[in-house]
Amino acid sequence: MISQAVNDRAPVLELDLMPESFFRIEKTKGKARLGRLTTPHGEIETPVFMPVGTLASVKGVPQDTLEELGAQIILGNTYHLYLRPGVETVRKMGGLHRFMSWPRAILTDSGGFQVFSLNELRKVTEDGVTFRSHLDGSSHFFSPESAMEAQIGLGADIIMAFDECTEFPADRERTRASMELTLRWAARSKKHFEEHKNEVPWGGRRTSDLRPQKTAELRSAGLPGEAVPTCSDQTQALFGIVQGGMDRELRRESALRTVEIGFPGHAIGGLSVGEPRELTREIVESTLEHLPVDKPRYLMGVGTPQEIVEYANLGVDMMDCVLPTRAARHGLLFTSEGKVSIKQARFAQDEAPLDPNCGCRVCQRYSRAYLRHLYASNEVLAQVLNTIHNLSFYLDTMRRVRHSISLGEESSSLSGVWSRPKP
Amino acid sequence: MISQAVNDRAPVLELDLMPESFFRIEKTKGKARLGRLTTPHGEIETPVFMPVGTLASVKGVPQDTLEELGAQIILGNTYHLYLRPGVETVRKMGGLHRFMSWPRAILTDSGGFQVFSLNELRKVTEDGVTFRSHLDGSSHFFSPESAMEAQIGLGADIIMAFDECTEFPADRERTRASMELTLRWAARSKKHFEEHKNEVPWGGRRTSDLRPQKTAELRSAGLPGEAVPTCSDQTQALFGIVQGGMDRELRRESALRTVEIGFPGHAIGGLSVGEPRELTREIVESTLEHLPVDKPRYLMGVGTPQEIVEYANLGVDMMDCVLPTRAARHGLLFTSEGKVSIKQARFAQDEAPLDPNCGCRVCQRYSRAYLRHLYASNEVLAQVLNTIHNLSFYLDTMRRVRHSISLGEESSSLSGVWSRPKP
Repeated sequence: MISQAVNDRAPVLELDLMPESFFRIEKTKGKARLGRLTTPHGEIETPVFMPVGTLASVKGVPQDTLEELGAQIILGNTYHLYLRPGVETVRKMGGLHRFMSWPRAILTDSGGFQVFSLNELRKVTEDGVTFRSHLDGSSHFFSPESAMEAQIGLGADIIMAFDECTEFPADRERTRASMELTLRWAARSKKHFEEHKNEVPWGGRRTSDLRPQKTAELRSAGLPGEAVPTCSDQTQALFGIVQGGMDRELRRESALRTVEIGFPGHAIGGLSVGEPRELTREIVESTLEHLPVDKPRYLMGVGTPQEIVEYANLGVDMMDCVLPTRAARHGLLFTSEGKVSIKQARFAQDEAPLDPNCGCRVCQRYSRAYLRHLYASNEVLAQVLNTIHNLSFYLDTMRRVRHSISLGEESSSLSGVWSRPKP
Repeated sequence: MISQAVNDRAPVLELDLMPESFFRIEKTKGKARLGRLTTPHGEIETPVFMPVGTLASVKGVPQDTLEELGAQIILGNTYHLYLRPGVETVRKMGGLHRFMSWPRAILTDSGGFQVFSLNELRKVTEDGVTFRSHLDGSSHFFSPESAMEAQIGLGADIIMAFDECTEFPADRERTRASMELTLRWAARSKKHFEEHKNEVPWGGRRTSDLRPQKTAELRSAGLPGEAVPTCSDQTQALFGIVQGGMDRELRRESALRTVEIGFPGHAIGGLSVGEPRELTREIVESTLEHLPVDKPRYLMGVGTPQEIVEYANLGVDMMDCVLPTRAARHGLLFTSEGKVSIKQARFAQDEAPLDPNCGCRVCQRYSRAYLRHLYASNEVLAQVLNTIHNLSFYLDTMRRVRHSISLGEESSSLSGVWSRPKP
């Protein structure tokens, strides 16, 4: 079935990297897929949107609120966590889940994107990348091996091969060379991961109870102070990343050769780097054709509410983006009636909820006037409430997409709202 | 009973300003009193600690979390709210409770303290104070009448007479002149309040349901979009403020003459302005002797956890302080084991909860290591979680004080912890 759906250059041989049940597709509608990812920290219904929690925190939102919002998986940034608090600290604390008290799934990126986007003085060799910390200018080195070591130490459920994010624009020669480097790094990432995957801090157990109080109780009772192991054979899942710039042919080649290396899931990287939105969509659509249908496809760093619906309908299973959280901090709110810039004076005495069709705790309790006041007064609660609402909107949007697929409907209604001109 | 307990210069005549049931003392132990304040927005068990919500927000804490923490009454700052969002906006929105969606009680200060502490260029005349906004330098004027107008428009349950906060140090002549001015302003405040108290935005009704969704539903059903009136005769309570600097004799005179004007409650102002702690305590203790025992006594701007216990034991019923919220923003946390500066490197890998004896949602879920990481990384969640814990500690402390009084115990155990040297 796999080899039929993929281009004939795709490998027939698939390594048994993950349990049969890692990803199950339960229903399809057109190219859209309703699926289920099984991780050591819970099941994830796909298509899924993953809130970004760069430094082991989705900025301003307590973990219990994230749970209440229905976040199934969040993303941590390896580059940032490597610098602060440091991989060794997180590893000693039992991994990211335990460190931040987040019992559900986590994905970490490879660090590659941040090394490239935050470092103008980076130096790339065959071996890896030398870069300077954006915090103190200190010099550091990431290779496929050290990026795997960092991600194994952090202990996310899904981790990413170390890649070079090709800059935009780039000519064909440069794009091919970059793609080839990413392919060699992908093979090295996989090799290192396979040799060290049992070193994950929660290896052999699942931390079903992460409360420090619980740990203290267990310790005072003479027990090791850790939750009881419930599973002995769980490891992380390493995904490969497709590069190839804005060249459809190179994207095809990158996809097929990445698949050939053998990963339980595949990401499309190197997009949203400054190219026009139509080009992003074209590259995503053509790349998806070359990825196995029975493995999860993760589109990195995308996008607007409209885009996440569109890409889910194209067959993308996982997406992440800083947009809902970053926009919230700038007072830009997503609603069922379009975008709202809450700083505007016209909301100063508006008693209505931000989004009359939203059931989140912000829309249920506060008025636009109050949210406008908090933002205008630079109150921290503005960031907290705005972020809660925007995440709620994104997570609800994806929930509706899943519901539409399960009903066999095209989930295009939201796109309609989002392509309407602003009132 | 009143005149017996108060110095013989105290007035025998007490105006019937508030319903008999505004303040009831249910039990006493030594000088400490267990009481109950009945406001248009709920009952308050005293002694009570009031979290400070300067700009209609306790910085970083959503209102539902404040409710969960058991905050019975919060404080708003008239000076700040007058500048942003402006009294007229709040009044049109139905008052502070409705504006910020806080159904429980609110107290506003007179604006006097901020005018004096934030304005170096203020100009005081018999009429009032001219000052410049700390935001844009614009010129403004507060008088007893305009301060009442502002506080009636904001619509807090308890409001304060406009006073001059005497600077420290000040000689006797200056202190007496300032005290006399405050007394004249107190009489003017009361006169204006009595003439305009029915203009409170929620006058004649209690907003039992403040949700904007509810308002929208009511409006779409052709109803006025406001909660149903439940009470027709409720107004705000205006408290007088005792000044008199650090002079016990002037404090006595200020107390007796303030009481004579006739208020349903009395505040002790002009303390915590730079004087030694022992002097604060001495002045509070001597001033309390001259205040009626059957009316609530509010000590403004105090203090540490140790101090709020001590002052409750001296017979103070209400206290407010920015310490728990401000210290939280600087990583200074109050625990049953003493103060913790969470930024310290020694907590980097400390898996224990912040306070093993605390039941708040922060101590139940997160480790010191995680809180330290959030603070060191300048994450907004640090402020949110630190503030929740510190408020929980203060509110729990006061809950324990009330419990001790109800059991007939001296609530001095906490003071013991707080006077212990740091480990």
